[in-house]
Amino acid sequence: MDYYSSQITKLIETLSGLPGIGSKSAQRLAFHIINMPEDSVEALADSIVSARKKVCRCKECCTLTDNELCPICKSPERDKQTIMVVENSRDLAAYEKTGKFNGVYHVLHGAISPLLNVTPADITIKELLVRLQQDVKEVIIATNSNIEGEATAMYISKLLKPAGIKVTRIASGVPVGGDLEYIDEVTLLRALEGRKEL
Amino acid sequence: MDYYSSQITKLIETLSGLPGIGSKSAQRLAFHIINMPEDSVEALADSIVSARKKVCRCKECCTLTDNELCPICKSPERDKQTIMVVENSRDLAAYEKTGKFNGVYHVLHGAISPLLNVTPADITIKELLVRLQQDVKEVIIATNSNIEGEATAMYISKLLKPAGIKVTRIASGVPVGGDLEYIDEVTLLRALEGRKEL
Repeated sequence: MDYYSSQITKLIETLSGLPGIGSKSAQRLAFHIINMPEDSVEALADSIVSARKKVCRCKECCTLTDNELCPICKSPERDKQTIMVVENSRDLAAYEKTGKFNGVYHVLHGAISPLLNVTPADITIKELLVRLQQDVKEVIIATNSNIEGEATAMYISKLLKPAGIKVTRIASGVPVGGDLEYIDEVTLLRALEGRKEL
Repeated sequence: MDYYSSQITKLIETLSGLPGIGSKSAQRLAFHIINMPEDSVEALADSIVSARKKVCRCKECCTLTDNELCPICKSPERDKQTIMVVENSRDLAAYEKTGKFNGVYHVLHGAISPLLNVTPADITIKELLVRLQQDVKEVIIATNSNIEGEATAMYISKLLKPAGIKVTRIASGVPVGGDLEYIDEVTLLRALEGRKEL
C-alpha cells in the first residue's frame, strides 16, 4: 500500500486488525476518520482509551462495568434471589433488552471447552459459588445452545443441585418466526422433546 | 443501554457513528477493545489521532498524504505528462492496484452535484488548471460512472478542450467476469455503444 502515505497505511492496518473489519471497510473508516473534525477524532480516541482503562468487572456479577458494582447489581429493584448465568456481557445485554427479566446476572466470561483449553477455573464459576452462600432461590443457566454452552450448563447444574439450589436451563427450540424447513435437525428434535400440552 | 456502564455505552455510541458500523458491530468492537492489551489500545487511539493530525493534501495532486508531496508525485519514474483525474484517494488506490498506470493523478475530492450543493469551486478543479500550465499530454477522466461523475467529466472536458489538451474518459461497459443477465440496461447499452471491431 505504498500509494497511501505511511500514516494512512498504518491506520488502515490497525483498523483491519479489529474483528469484522476487512481491508475495504478499514480503508473506508480510515478516510472517514481523516475527514472528521479534529475534536471528534480526539473524542473517539479518548473514549477508546478510557473505556479500556476504566472498565473492570463488577465485584458481584463479574460483568464489565466502570464502577465497583454494575447498574443492575446496584439497583434495589432487582430480585437478587434469581441469578441468570450468561457467557458474556453481550448476552446479558440481549436478555436485558427483552425488559422481562427482573433478576440479576452472573457473567462467566466464557464457556468450558476442552478443545480451546478453557477449564472451569478459567471462567467465573468460583465467584458464582461465593454468591450462592447468600439466599438464592433459582439459578437460570442461559449459556449458548452449543457444545461448550451445554457442557458448561451441565457442569454448573451438577455442582449446584447437591447443594439444594433450584437450577433451570432456558428452553431450546424453534425460534419465533422461524420457518421449519430452514431449521436444522437438532433444533427440530429439541423442539419436539420440549413440547408442551396446549 | 443502561445495562452497560457509561464508559462502555459511550464507546459503543461513538463507534456506531462510524460509516458501515451498526449497533451490533459497535458492541462487538467495543468489547473487543476492552479485552485488548492496554498498549494495543493506546496504539490504536494514537494512530487514529496522528493520522487525522498529520494527513494533508499533496500540493501537486491533492491526494491525502503526510508529506508536502505524495509518494506518486515524488517518484521520478512516473510520467508527469499523463494525469488521471479521480474523485477521491480510494479511487486512486484502486487504479494503483492494477499496477498498469504509470502517469500521475489528480484527486478532485468530490464530484459536481447540484443536488448536494457541490459546485465546481468545491472540488479541486482550480488546482488541476494550475497543473495544466506545465507540459501535459493527456488528461484521463476517471470519475465514477454515475450522474455526478459524468457531469464532472463533461465539465472538465469542456474546460480543457478549448485549451488544446487531449482529454479522454475511461471506458464504460460490462465488467470482466460479469454475467450479462445480471447487468442493468444502461450498462448494457453503454457496452453496445462502445463496441469495438475484433
